[in-house]
Amino acid sequence: MRGAVMHAPGDVRVETRDDPAIVAPTDAIVRLSATCVCGSDLWPYRGIDPVESPTPMGHEYAGIVEAVGDEVRTIEPGQFVVGSFFASDNTCEICRAGYQTSCVQRQPGAATGGQAEYTRVPLADGTLVATPDVPADDLVPSLLAASDVLGTGWFGAVAAEAGPGRTVAVVGDGAVGLLAVLAATQLGAGRVIAMSRHEPRQELALEYGATDIVTERGDDGVARIKELTGGLGAHSVVEAVGTQESMMQAIRSTRPGGHVGYVGVAHDVQLPGEELFFSHVHLHGGPAPVRRFLPELIDLIWNRRIDPGKVFDLELPLDDAAEAYRAMDERRAIKALLRV
Amino acid sequence: MRGAVMHAPGDVRVETRDDPAIVAPTDAIVRLSATCVCGSDLWPYRGIDPVESPTPMGHEYAGIVEAVGDEVRTIEPGQFVVGSFFASDNTCEICRAGYQTSCVQRQPGAATGGQAEYTRVPLADGTLVATPDVPADDLVPSLLAASDVLGTGWFGAVAAEAGPGRTVAVVGDGAVGLLAVLAATQLGAGRVIAMSRHEPRQELALEYGATDIVTERGDDGVARIKELTGGLGAHSVVEAVGTQESMMQAIRSTRPGGHVGYVGVAHDVQLPGEELFFSHVHLHGGPAPVRRFLPELIDLIWNRRIDPGKVFDLELPLDDAAEAYRAMDERRAIKALLRV
Repeated sequence: MRGAVMHAPGDVRVETRDDPAIVAPTDAIVRLSATCVCGSDLWPYRGIDPVESPTPMGHEYAGIVEAVGDEVRTIEPGQFVVGSFFASDNTCEICRAGYQTSCVQRQPGAATGGQAEYTRVPLADGTLVATPDVPADDLVPSLLAASDVLGTGWFGAVAAEAGPGRTVAVVGDGAVGLLAVLAATQLGAGRVIAMSRHEPRQELALEYGATDIVTERGDDGVARIKELTGGLGAHSVVEAVGTQESMMQAIRSTRPGGHVGYVGVAHDVQLPGEELFFSHVHLHGGPAPVRRFLPELIDLIWNRRIDPGKVFDLELPLDDAAEAYRAMDERRAIKALLRV
Repeated sequence: MRGAVMHAPGDVRVETRDDPAIVAPTDAIVRLSATCVCGSDLWPYRGIDPVESPTPMGHEYAGIVEAVGDEVRTIEPGQFVVGSFFASDNTCEICRAGYQTSCVQRQPGAATGGQAEYTRVPLADGTLVATPDVPADDLVPSLLAASDVLGTGWFGAVAAEAGPGRTVAVVGDGAVGLLAVLAATQLGAGRVIAMSRHEPRQELALEYGATDIVTERGDDGVARIKELTGGLGAHSVVEAVGTQESMMQAIRSTRPGGHVGYVGVAHDVQLPGEELFFSHVHLHGGPAPVRRFLPELIDLIWNRRIDPGKVFDLELPLDDAAEAYRAMDERRAIKALLRV
């Protein structure tokens, strides 16, 4: 099969690789319909995370089940499935509490890489969710989005307790931030403030339900959020970047007693304890337990009530994965979809 | 009147000071029945926080209202009242959300110092809660405890979402930690693990409802909590110390999806973002909004259902405040009460 491999920062190649095979009896093999490049794939691409050896890339996936292991009970060949970037048994105490990305059996969801024609998914019964039928082609981008960016934005909004009567601010206008705007709107928030200085992203934020756009960043951004919220700060703030500046911006934009939901992978972030203490905010986040939300998200997409696939503003064949990385690295694309 | 003044680290003197007077029409003057030394008073006493000029000390207070300003409506002279260490209007949006210690009008509750015969309390209507009647003498220590340590331990347990079906661990065996054990038990937690290596404190923890005692600290303490919770960690962990070690111990003792309630004033604490991210815990805390809980806590004390006053294992006259500080600094006393 063909699959993308990162050899070094800035060096992604699509190569012929071995087809994945069933290893454990709980595995499934999925023939991917589409995959994509994640903001977190850019960390090694930019040399911030090390690339120690050639690494098969990709952890977002949706497609048709090709084969399953002997112990797989609920997933069958021929089904169209969406899975999360972490595999989970969905039966342990942590999964049952809704934290499948911290499952006691946690492991990569696309074990052999998701930017490929096929991938092996461990713990298929606990990881994959089947759609009601094989979807129309135009639904595939949105279903793919559910496997990571939508699920992550959604978790950010849930962690920030977005809901009726609450003003929500979103820090970060990448795909996750934009889908956190969509999530906050779906969850019933009356006012959703998107923080963005890029016009095409602002437009999508407005389409997804943002009621206000704030272009300022850092201290000025915080001041603007306070100005829009009677001096108090937002009830709910979603942090969807993962830097020191964005985390502090999120915490400082939140009113005392409010909630910060953070889903940007926190690289080199140190939170000052005393400031956090006196901020009185609730802080919750981490790797989004997408599996918790997948049934609901698939239902919303299937019934065409949400269109998260719009975050893909670049579509390329899998063989052009290198260009997809470049376009995202240079911020020419919000998010690149790879047709398989 | 007589009142305690800190002149320098280690130098607390009880001196004759001016009686406080009504300054704002929303003030009350309270004649204190008892007051006490707080763990946070030890920060300047130990030279960790600066003492820039002679400072009237004390922020925990209970006593009889002596006089009120013209605009005070619900508090009357002759009432026995308990107040919080921060004054609050109890009407702003932040107060109504239950975060009175971040009230938009926040200011010190015992404006002229609480380790004294009298103190001035601003925003009396929003800050003070009257007991049903003048209490029996033996109830005074417990009512005094409600003004800070009980309210703080209670908030820690609430922030950690202690409740039925949840295993709670408490880091810190000072008065706040011990009262967090009491709170967790009152809130219905089935299992409450107190982390303490001091026998008299262990005994009080058991009396307050602890089901397990863990004497290990740091990594060993975390390992022991995991061992007691099927390898997963506690659902709820109360942090009642405020150091880097205790915060990390609390976070690492909590299962993914669990809740850390932190009420130790975080001095020189830096939380590593990436570890926090992957820990999947909820983090909430800060200066306890004691006012939120006072009516309920007074009711529990008044009806003798809880006895938080037992944390006072040393009782001295106000004039011996210096000895009270020394005893707490040297950990000879859990908490010292000063009779006025």
